[in-house]
Parts: sequence; C-alpha cells; structure tokens
Amino acid sequence: LSVKAARAADRGPVYFLSDYGRADEFVGVVHAVIDRGAPGTLVIDLTHDIAPFDVRAGAAALGRALPHLGPGIVLAVVDPGVGGQRRGLVLASSGPGPRFFVGPDNGLLLGALHASGGPSEAVALAPQADVAGAATFDGRDVFAPAVAALAGGAQPGDLGEPVGSETLVSLRPPLLSSRILSPGHRLLRAEVTWVDRFGNLQLAAPGGELPATLERLSARVVSGSPAGPTEVGQLRRVRTFDELSPGELGILVDANDQVAVVGGQTSAAARLGVTAGGVVELGW
Amino acid sequence: LSVKAARAADRGPVYFLSDYGRADEFVGVVHAVIDRGAPGTLVIDLTHDIAPFDVRAGAAALGRALPHLGPGIVLAVVDPGVGGQRRGLVLASSGPGPRFFVGPDNGLLLGALHASGGPSEAVALAPQADVAGAATFDGRDVFAPAVAALAGGAQPGDLGEPVGSETLVSLRPPLLSSRILSPGHRLLRAEVTWVDRFGNLQLAAPGGELPATLERLSARVVSGSPAGPTEVGQLRRVRTFDELSPGELGILVDANDQVAVVGGQTSAAARLGVTAGGVVELGW
Amino acid sequence: LSVKAARAADRGPVYFLSDYGRADEFVGVVHAVIDRGAPGTLVIDLTHDIAPFDVRAGAAALGRALPHLGPGIVLAVVDPGVGGQRRGLVLASSGPGPRFFVGPDNGLLLGALHASGGPSEAVALAPQADVAGAATFDGRDVFAPAVAALAGGAQPGDLGEPVGSETLVSLRPPLLSSRILSPGHRLLRAEVTWVDRFGNLQLAAPGGELPATLERLSARVVSGSPAGPTEVGQLRRVRTFDELSPGELGILVDANDQVAVVGGQTSAAARLGVTAGGVVELGW
Repeated sequence: LSVKAARAADRGPVYFLSDYGRADEFVGVVHAVIDRGAPGTLVIDLTHDIAPFDVRAGAAALGRALPHLGPGIVLAVVDPGVGGQRRGLVLASSGPGPRFFVGPDNGLLLGALHASGGPSEAVALAPQADVAGAATFDGRDVFAPAVAALAGGAQPGDLGEPVGSETLVSLRPPLLSSRILSPGHRLLRAEVTWVDRFGNLQLAAPGGELPATLERLSARVVSGSPAGPTEVGQLRRVRTFDELSPGELGILVDANDQVAVVGGQTSAAARLGVTAGGVVELGW
Repeated sequence: LSVKAARAADRGPVYFLSDYGRADEFVGVVHAVIDRGAPGTLVIDLTHDIAPFDVRAGAAALGRALPHLGPGIVLAVVDPGVGGQRRGLVLASSGPGPRFFVGPDNGLLLGALHASGGPSEAVALAPQADVAGAATFDGRDVFAPAVAALAGGAQPGDLGEPVGSETLVSLRPPLLSSRILSPGHRLLRAEVTWVDRFGNLQLAAPGGELPATLERLSARVVSGSPAGPTEVGQLRRVRTFDELSPGELGILVDANDQVAVVGGQTSAAARLGVTAGGVVELGW
Repeated sequence: LSVKAARAADRGPVYFLSDYGRADEFVGVVHAVIDRGAPGTLVIDLTHDIAPFDVRAGAAALGRALPHLGPGIVLAVVDPGVGGQRRGLVLASSGPGPRFFVGPDNGLLLGALHASGGPSEAVALAPQADVAGAATFDGRDVFAPAVAALAGGAQPGDLGEPVGSETLVSLRPPLLSSRILSPGHRLLRAEVTWVDRFGNLQLAAPGGELPATLERLSARVVSGSPAGPTEVGQLRRVRTFDELSPGELGILVDANDQVAVVGGQTSAAARLGVTAGGVVELGW
C-alpha cells in the first residue's frame, strides 16, 4: 500500500490496546508493521499494560475508552488462545466512533461494541498461509497487516469470510445485583471491574443506580480481599476527589459514569485490600 | 476543527506530561480527544510517570524538558485538586520554545515558565457546562479540548477570562543555601529535586555553584534517608559517568546543568537511601 | 532543517530503542529534539525498558525487531560509556530494512546489523564542540541531532569521519553448543537471551536446531538459577501456547524463529528461577 493509498482512505487513527507491556519490543514492532503497510497512519496507544491474558480487563478498558474515540480502527490484543482454534476477527460498526475492530474472537472486542449497538458485520480473518514456524505473535503477523489493509481502504470482506455475529464469543457480564431491604433501604452488590493507578475501585454499577440526593452510604467488602469480608463503614458521597480529606474514603460517580469507591490522595484499593474481580456492597 | 484548520494553524507539537501512568487508558484517551479536535497534531509524551499528585516533581520534569522543546503547546496534568476550586489555565509565553501552556493552576506550569520569563498572558478556562456527573478527568474533558482548540488556531482569550499573573499559584522554591565556613571553605546545602531511573540524585544547585577547578568534595545526607543523617565521605568530581569506577559515587554537573550525586553503573539513591525532597550537604 | 526538507528526504520513520525508561522525561525530550530538527518525522518507540546499561539485552531486542522494520533510521542508546572515549556512530546498511543506524560504538548496533550483512559504511560522529558542561545525555545532545540530520537528507559522511568497520566494538556471541551423545541422542546447550513479559525464555538456538518431528525433550537448567543446576524433566514440544495446559511448561520455536522454553499462561522464568544470561540444556 502506498502512502497515497493510506492517506487517501483517511480512515482515521488506529487505537491500539494490548497486554504486551512496554518492556519488550512487541508494541513497537506492531507499530512498525502497520507503518510499513499503511505509511502515515497515526497509531494511538490506549494502553499495553493490561495484565497478561486478562481478557476481561482489556474489554473493560476498551469499553471505557470507546465513547471518546473518533472514527478509526481499533486494534485490541489480549489473546491467551493465540495460535489455537480461536478465530481472528474484523468487526465493523455503524455506530459513532471507530468503524473497524480487529482482534481475537474471545470477547475482548464484543463487549466494547455492544455499547455502540453491536457489530454491523463480522469477518473471520483468513489464516496466514505464509507464516512459518510457531503462530505465537498474531498481533504482528495477522492483526497488524489486517489493520494496515483496512487503513489503506480494504473492506472487511477482503480479509476473510463473513461469520454470524451470534457465533462470536462473549464474556459473562460483571456481577451487579440490587436488593430492596425495606421501603427506602437498598443494598447494591457490584463487582470491581477496574483498579486504576490511583487505587480507585470502579464498580459494575452505572452512576444512575445512586439516588441523586444520596449523601452517605455504608460499604462492605464481600469478596476479593485477603482479609475476607470487611465492613468499611459509612462513606460520604462526593462529586470530586477534592471534597475528600487526605486519607478519607468516599463514593463518587466517576468519569465513565460508574459508581466508584475512591480515596482522597490515598489508594482505596490498598486500604481495602481489594483487586479487580472483588465484590463490594453498598447500602443506603 | 477540520484537519485543514489544525494543519493550517501549524502551532507545532503538543508536549504532554502527567501523573496518569500508562497502566490505564487515560493517556491514550487524551491523545484521542486531541486528535478528534485537531486531527494531524503530533503529541509527544514527555512522561506520564510522575508520582501520583506530586506537583513539585511534575514541575521539575517540565522545567528540565523545557529548554529542549520547540514552538508548540505544553499540556501538563498533575492535579490533586481536579474538580475542586482550582482554576484551569492557559498561559501564553513570548519566550523561545512552547507558546502555550495548559493545565491546572497549582504551580505545575508556572515554575517551568519562570525560566523563560514568565507568562505573557494568563487565562482561566471557562468551566465546562456540558460535563455531566463527576468532574474527575479534566485532562480529557477540559484540558485536551482546550489544547485542540489552540492547535486549531484559537487564542487563549477565546477559551476563558484573563486573570492577573500575580494571582497564579506558585510552588515554594527548592531548598538551597550556601555557607562560608572560613576563607576558601564552603558548605552547600541543597534539596534533592529528582531521582532518575539510574538512581542519580539531582540537586537544586546550578552547576555554577561548584568552582571549575574543584576535584574533591565531602558529602553528607542531611535528611531524606531512613538511616538519618549520614556521612558519605569524600567524592570525586567528574565530568562523565564513565570516569567513575563501577560502584563509585561521585559529583557531576549534569545534562540540565545542575549539580548531581551520581554512581558509576550503580544507583546513588539506593546506596544513600535518599529520595526526592531529601537534603544533601556538599563541602569543599 | 525545514519541514519541507524533512518530508522531501522521506527516509522513513525513526525506530528508537533505549534503556532510558519512561519514568523520566528522557525519551520525550529526544522525540522533541528530533521533531525540532526534522519536523514531521515519525518516531516509533521500540522499547525503552532495556535494563540500565544492559548492552547485550538491547542488541538482542534490536535484532529481534529488525526483520520487521521498514526503510528508516534506527536510534539505539544503551550507553554505559556515555561521555567517555567510546565513539558515537552512524552505520549505513544496504540490506532491506533501515538504512541508517545511530548510537554508541559498544556492540549495540553491530549485532543487529550482522544479520542483514553488516554495515556498508561506518562514520564516527564528530564530537559536539558546543555542548557545555557534562557530556551525560548524548541521546539528546549528539544522537538525536544526527538522526534529525539524516532524516532531513544528510549523508553519514556529513556528520563525521569514516572508520573501518573492523574497528567497531562487537559483543561476544551468546553461548550455544551441541553435543551428540550417541547416534540419535543429542544435547543442546544454549544461553537464555531474553525473558519476555510473559516469562518465556528465549534461547540462543535457532529453531532449525530442533528436528521437525521431535515431540518431547528433556530440559535442565545449567546455570542462572539461584537454586543451582535443576532438572526440569520431560517437556512437550508444541507449536502454540494454546496447546499447553495452564501451568504446563513446553518448548516451542517462537515468533523470532528461536527455541524457547514457555509456559501455558504461566511464567516459565518464574517457575525455573532463570533470568537472561542463564544456560539451559535440552536433550533428545
């Protein structure tokens, strides 16, 4: 593909997410392969520090980023099944934001796409006949060339065979349940879907689950802490981190419109000993 | 803003520094928002591994980078007060290097700008009326759109109200004192402003504080080590790391023209147990 | 150099590898200096997390990436001798892939280049007369300007004096030996050249060392483990990670066509306690 072709297609940037880390040259080599195939294409790294093989964490990160991405091509690789029977996919979307999604068929792409209406088209990438030896780096050998082809103007159907979207692998949704104890008393139980750099715990509960006027909640760690179930006590509901005293824990609706347990310049995760996959119960 | 507008403005790259880390998708999402607003703008990541909330460390890193940046736009976000009363700023500079600086009004930008003559113009960003829910990710919701607007040709005055530069928050300068013990004998006491990846300790003392002919200095850790005040002994003053034997500590004037305690293929910080904010005394 | 010059030269992207890490602003400042000198040049980061001063690891990473890089300029800096007597180099290659290589004369560049036929031209960079103070950041002060000049159309001979390629520093090759015990019985002893993020151990043995039909091998850690020499036992030879049960160790020919000891969603390195530089013996 010539520079002219890649630029003419003008399909926007590539948004790249993986569990490759940055300590090795994996990410850089994928950039290089995309640039060879479609020179002049901008590649924006979302993150490459998804925990190795953690497809759920990758899907969650992609889902959080998606509303902020423009038209373009998503490349997402968290792929414990690389080289095995799992298919490589190109999904197309007619929603706003990225038009194409490239990655393994293990639920990584599909969860993110559901929020924007699901895929309008799904194609299984043709196996690479010309890759000798081990099939252990599909990001470089299969997905990056597909991304470059799309950036250069190819259609998904040029890259493989259509598959029914009902055959695509999907992830179980994160745990979320709500129980009314008595009129006006409620218990919300939600999985921790993400612990961010600052130690904030994002829950699987949309912000709308909290009554707008709510000022205080009880919090309890149900699971996910080595210390076992733990009462956290009453927490203030705030709108910004700044309202919390240093060291104080609180509840806010975060920048992804999800309920979060957060700390004032302290790590809520470290304080509660909770990691992603744990379960927290809020009551009011 | 169209691609044409962004390119026409030709305001150079965006230089982006934060405490967002790279483990989450924060940095990538900010890149995406800038690219949506001003397609074709180059974003150069200075670093995103400033310790969470460490405004002083962020200001120091920005200050070190600044002399090497071309015309462009600085985006710096280390922002414990996000969403609170602190203002968002656009500062303009008529010095060489970047023309605009975007970030929180907490001293992060101002320290860097003082070295190039201080801001020629200061504007407080208008609050974002259209951001629903929590105001916890101003990098994405407030600062990145402002950067994109500037990249596309906007003037600071288009983005908010002018504020007096005397009202801007500034940081206390790092500790630096010099004492003459007797004619020809001097004690220099300086704060450690940075510990780099290699464990070198940069001090708040400009290289000019050391006499050009000085060959040996005594060093003492005054504070910042868990072991308490510690005599380090006599150190050689060298011009390059290469002059030190492996494991030897020494003093050099570093690549930012600051006095530094360094090691020959060893970490001076680990050897002395000192972190940024500690104080070191040099004598000759 | 004007934008026009840099783009006219069209010498492809810069591929940048170093031990600078990302916690400091080193990498970003080098990007900034290249962009000032040759605006519009794409810089692709291969990795910056080579262990400090580990020239061998840097050369290995560059060698793995090289077959996937297009025409362009390699900038590689792992440089314990910065500022000392070691020369700065521009090497030219007439092989496929990058045309120029810039970095210190310590073996970092040469190993990678040997795979593509060795350098066709070698130039020692002229010392920077205008750099005041310490010479501790040649990446910024010497190599980045050279890269920008090349990107803008300069020839190596414009940047310094030719040197004989036989005078270039090279690294000892990694240990690899093969012993025939009896007809059909073989022992292969190889150095671990790389432990990747997933804990896979890449050996110095090309994939062709393993008979195509081999299904099982014995493995033994000879050195590099704190536990001393260790029998690992019989391992299955697989083609993909997916063939291994979670927790199972195995042998495969990896994406760089090298023999590797790997784990099924587990870290072989952690399991065997081996790091790069250790030695593993395989038998069949």
